Amino acid sequence: MKMFRNDYSEICHKRVLEALNDALNEQNVGYGLDKHSENAKKMIQSLIKNDNASVHFLVGGTQTNMTMISYALKDYEAVIAVATGHINVHETGSIESSGHKILTVTGENGKIRPADIKDVIKNHVDEHMVKPKMVYISNSTEIGTIYKKEELEAIYKTCKENNLYLFIDGARLASALTSKDNDLTIEDVAKNCDSFYLGGTKNGLMFGEALVIINDSLKEDFRFQIKNKGAMLAKGFISGIEFEAILKDNLYFEIAKGANDNAYLLSRKLKELGFKVDEVYTNQVFVTCSNDEACFITNNFGCELWRDLGEEKQVRFVTSFSTRKEDVIELYNTLKKYLNK
Amino acid sequence: MKMFRNDYSEICHKRVLEALNDALNEQNVGYGLDKHSENAKKMIQSLIKNDNASVHFLVGGTQTNMTMISYALKDYEAVIAVATGHINVHETGSIESSGHKILTVTGENGKIRPADIKDVIKNHVDEHMVKPKMVYISNSTEIGTIYKKEELEAIYKTCKENNLYLFIDGARLASALTSKDNDLTIEDVAKNCDSFYLGGTKNGLMFGEALVIINDSLKEDFRFQIKNKGAMLAKGFISGIEFEAILKDNLYFEIAKGANDNAYLLSRKLKELGFKVDEVYTNQVFVTCSNDEACFITNNFGCELWRDLGEEKQVRFVTSFSTRKEDVIELYNTLKKYLNK
Amino acid sequence: MKMFRNDYSEICHKRVLEALNDALNEQNVGYGLDKHSENAKKMIQSLIKNDNASVHFLVGGTQTNMTMISYALKDYEAVIAVATGHINVHETGSIESSGHKILTVTGENGKIRPADIKDVIKNHVDEHMVKPKMVYISNSTEIGTIYKKEELEAIYKTCKENNLYLFIDGARLASALTSKDNDLTIEDVAKNCDSFYLGGTKNGLMFGEALVIINDSLKEDFRFQIKNKGAMLAKGFISGIEFEAILKDNLYFEIAKGANDNAYLLSRKLKELGFKVDEVYTNQVFVTCSNDEACFITNNFGCELWRDLGEEKQVRFVTSFSTRKEDVIELYNTLKKYLNK
Amino acid sequence: MKMFRNDYSEICHKRVLEALNDALNEQNVGYGLDKHSENAKKMIQSLIKNDNASVHFLVGGTQTNMTMISYALKDYEAVIAVATGHINVHETGSIESSGHKILTVTGENGKIRPADIKDVIKNHVDEHMVKPKMVYISNSTEIGTIYKKEELEAIYKTCKENNLYLFIDGARLASALTSKDNDLTIEDVAKNCDSFYLGGTKNGLMFGEALVIINDSLKEDFRFQIKNKGAMLAKGFISGIEFEAILKDNLYFEIAKGANDNAYLLSRKLKELGFKVDEVYTNQVFVTCSNDEACFITNNFGCELWRDLGEEKQVRFVTSFSTRKEDVIELYNTLKKYLNK
Repeated sequence: MKMFRNDYSEICHKRVLEALNDALNEQNVGYGLDKHSENAKKMIQSLIKNDNASVHFLVGGTQTNMTMISYALKDYEAVIAVATGHINVHETGSIESSGHKILTVTGENGKIRPADIKDVIKNHVDEHMVKPKMVYISNSTEIGTIYKKEELEAIYKTCKENNLYLFIDGARLASALTSKDNDLTIEDVAKNCDSFYLGGTKNGLMFGEALVIINDSLKEDFRFQIKNKGAMLAKGFISGIEFEAILKDNLYFEIAKGANDNAYLLSRKLKELGFKVDEVYTNQVFVTCSNDEACFITNNFGCELWRDLGEEKQVRFVTSFSTRKEDVIELYNTLKKYLNK
Repeated sequence: MKMFRNDYSEICHKRVLEALNDALNEQNVGYGLDKHSENAKKMIQSLIKNDNASVHFLVGGTQTNMTMISYALKDYEAVIAVATGHINVHETGSIESSGHKILTVTGENGKIRPADIKDVIKNHVDEHMVKPKMVYISNSTEIGTIYKKEELEAIYKTCKENNLYLFIDGARLASALTSKDNDLTIEDVAKNCDSFYLGGTKNGLMFGEALVIINDSLKEDFRFQIKNKGAMLAKGFISGIEFEAILKDNLYFEIAKGANDNAYLLSRKLKELGFKVDEVYTNQVFVTCSNDEACFITNNFGCELWRDLGEEKQVRFVTSFSTRKEDVIELYNTLKKYLNK
Repeated sequence: MKMFRNDYSEICHKRVLEALNDALNEQNVGYGLDKHSENAKKMIQSLIKNDNASVHFLVGGTQTNMTMISYALKDYEAVIAVATGHINVHETGSIESSGHKILTVTGENGKIRPADIKDVIKNHVDEHMVKPKMVYISNSTEIGTIYKKEELEAIYKTCKENNLYLFIDGARLASALTSKDNDLTIEDVAKNCDSFYLGGTKNGLMFGEALVIINDSLKEDFRFQIKNKGAMLAKGFISGIEFEAILKDNLYFEIAKGANDNAYLLSRKLKELGFKVDEVYTNQVFVTCSNDEACFITNNFGCELWRDLGEEKQVRFVTSFSTRKEDVIELYNTLKKYLNK
Repeated sequence: MKMFRNDYSEICHKRVLEALNDALNEQNVGYGLDKHSENAKKMIQSLIKNDNASVHFLVGGTQTNMTMISYALKDYEAVIAVATGHINVHETGSIESSGHKILTVTGENGKIRPADIKDVIKNHVDEHMVKPKMVYISNSTEIGTIYKKEELEAIYKTCKENNLYLFIDGARLASALTSKDNDLTIEDVAKNCDSFYLGGTKNGLMFGEALVIINDSLKEDFRFQIKNKGAMLAKGFISGIEFEAILKDNLYFEIAKGANDNAYLLSRKLKELGFKVDEVYTNQVFVTCSNDEACFITNNFGCELWRDLGEEKQVRFVTSFSTRKEDVIELYNTLKKYLNK
């Protein structure tokens, strides 16, 4: 039985491992200064149509967030995020440990709104309070929702008006950009922020996040910051080879679209079985069910228990590059049998 | 016209300056190892009836909070506080800058409740989230309310059950303990926390907070931490002389009681004039009024504009050791004239 | 022509990639809680004959050093290291950035001596100075030397007598333990320190360092610290698979011995050609030569220019798991031809 | 018997306390935004003939160093100092704890030289090492020597050529500028650095250092940094009143000159008694003597044992604003009697 626990349960897409096999006898210089990394960077610059962007390959999401945020902010500056934001909840205080306050807002559907940002700005008036200097958003968000073009543009406009950087956590950016509801291109993303990253770990790579820096004022000496945070991979060329493989022939987005499509199918099938399913935008499917059902689901499909709603529970299914249509059908059949339907 | 801006607008109580005058020709060893500091420490140990407590004199409140909290917590540990807590709002990110997340709860009337703490504990389940390790409360609170004995005991019990330190910001502890509604002794305070401080800056000293450490596990090498945070005063004997003077003959509490009494008088007088006044527990008086009235009050009495309620404003009056009954009456008369009553 | 730049120029040993290929269709839980990681941990516990040791897989050396050192030390505590130590020179201030002073000593041949430690202890007498709390050594050292059993035991004894942790950077531990001059077993290493790591990156893995914690007082909540430092790999099972593969059938040590043997051969051959070669203990070969020769060597064999000695230069050759005897011979022939000998 | 332990053994110069007495009934706004602070800032701007300089009053030297250095440097940047520098030895790791490496050089007579700076620059070549960004010097130095105009100009020139800030710890700046060997004016100081401070604690104030920022790029939001480091005094007007008093009628420099003159007298008298005395530039007198003599001196005059030279000891005498000529003579007579001369 295939698990639906998350999108980082398998080593990597087979074409990534093939690329590593192909390069097994190569020698490359270390620390990301090799030809593969150079090539992968160019592929990303080409993708976003911006040859001036800096691209750096880091290992994981928390590390990337910490490295960029601690680079961008001075001791007394803070980053604004929704309360459900990854940096606020699931990074064990790495942003604070590297010295910076996260100012949280409630937002809506996991997303921040211009009004949220303006409220924070309005309430931070003097040197007895931190100075807001950056907005952090995730696309797709921690609860699987996505930003529409209009929303992103409005946020970035608000940021620029208030002298704030906009940084986009793209751990699941491919999922967002291939969502059925998406109207953003990756060029739009790059034009409407100061920095973002293309997540690899959750989209078919063994590891690796491609951090893109658009704003010139965030570029200088950035490799020093990477090393300072213990985030510079000795064998950086592996990241380069991985990204070359995943970006080739649009594989990066095809993978994500496939996972999304299977999530939509899963959602339909779960509804067919009578479950309450939150609207699905990307590859995360949130389902409300009884305690017993939740127990069965977590045991049999590896799903995480997401929220305890008292009488009921919310569980999360995640599809990935390795999920096949038949896996969804098998899950459906197994559940159907369990429910005696 | 006497200002009612805050309780740290005057240099110090005259008896404090007299004590300094008396010692002007003395020579003392530095860094708080002098006889005055030793004597003041003993006075505090005697006051709380605990000879085993460590006492350290620091300069200001933010500094004291930062020094203790960063000492007590490991990189991944967090401190729980109400959202209105001084460390969360008015310390320019000093806790985060020294490496630690503040987990905020809404609380009630500026106070944290055992249920708030339990909620935080319940929601922090694994190593992907910070580990709550300390609870921070202020008494009196940032909005002038106080903790009753029953409340403090319940909080401390919850802390001990959950392996959390309880740290009490006592910048205005004297105000709390001399409130008409208080039922805590200073001994009770010392018995129901791991560390607290007796604020001097807001109660008649030039500067100085007396940090008391009850829990043995927070004592070792604490002077290293003080120096590490730039908080060790070269002429530490000045703190010692100040605290000797203010603690002598119960002056510390008399001052605070006087300020509280004048706050109650002020509250009655403002109500007489028709103002909406929040219930007053200590030396802070929060008044809701029209924009024009707020403007008059801030201009004439130096009060801070506390909150913008749209049509109305909230302003804050603070009484201090230097406030006299006749100052309150003069304020009343001035306001009455302005209001044409 | 094979390069001799360093020991992290190739992706990994082929058996590591084969193991990944074999597991390509597996699903595993994330963050190192999978069966491969568990198995690899048991293999290491078995290797050091200590079932009580904690084992954690991290990605790189700087990251591992930073994570452990910042875990072990309080704000005012410091780590002692030789001036040439990796943490002091080549980690872009990551130890200081995570909050701790490095106290450097000169040492001898890249190694610290008990007398160095005692000197530091003697000179740090009060709370105006940092408190030394840890000793950091690398084995093999940054200049390729190794610690003899007697030396390590004496250092650890000094540490225990002075209440200091001993932490061993084992980025090249396999090289040290397979040196012709070595008399330490890995069990000896584990018995004579509080924590050490088995380096993977520089000994045939794609990435990965296996941090072993012996001292119970350094174990609690360590996974929180890993996450806090951005060092927890989502697909932790990859580390597990890598270490399973490299530890199987003693491959880890065979690889290292092979690299060392080729370094000895290289040394002999270089001497044959008339070069001044420092005594070689492990897989690093330091050669003093003319400017022109240095130029030829760095251009043709990828070697790093190590030190500028004015009239002369020092260059470094490094052998690795992928170096073959015939690569050394080819290098020899090429150099011989260049020298017209 | 007057002690010669240090220059911060007495509360303050009497004129400082008189000024506080005079202002005892005043009310002032907090946090250094009052009229006294404004006036004292203007006095300092006038003194250095630079109306564009920013002036901030902090409490102590370690705090001032930490606040400025952590403001000026990014995570991966380092400050260069002589090994004997206060930030390196006597601040309990506060610079590292706030995130930055100190790169030490040996220097000469407690002073850094342009060649030292150039060496550091030369050895820091890439992103695997910290990036030197600031030079820290003390004038007078930690061992009582002073920088000549030519030396300071050469250092600042080297800094500018290498894109380094120059920051001068002026805890004892008044001693330096009134030394018999000094050829610097305070204007020269201000023209040859990016920031410096006028120490108050060691020159007649209760506490307080006046930080002067010359370089515009170090000015923005500096008050946020002060608050963030717990260094903003609530009753900032006390600092203002203190500096007004000490700067009036040149008292600040007269005090320092008096202390220096008594140090020269002391030096002559000690030589008369046959002691080996290091050359004296300011108010610190270093004397080499037998163990017994050292014991007598520390016990009777409160001097610190400075260095253990084995057979001999070095002790330090410090004169201050309160030292009188007759105190020196009394010391001389006491010592003479002890020595039976």
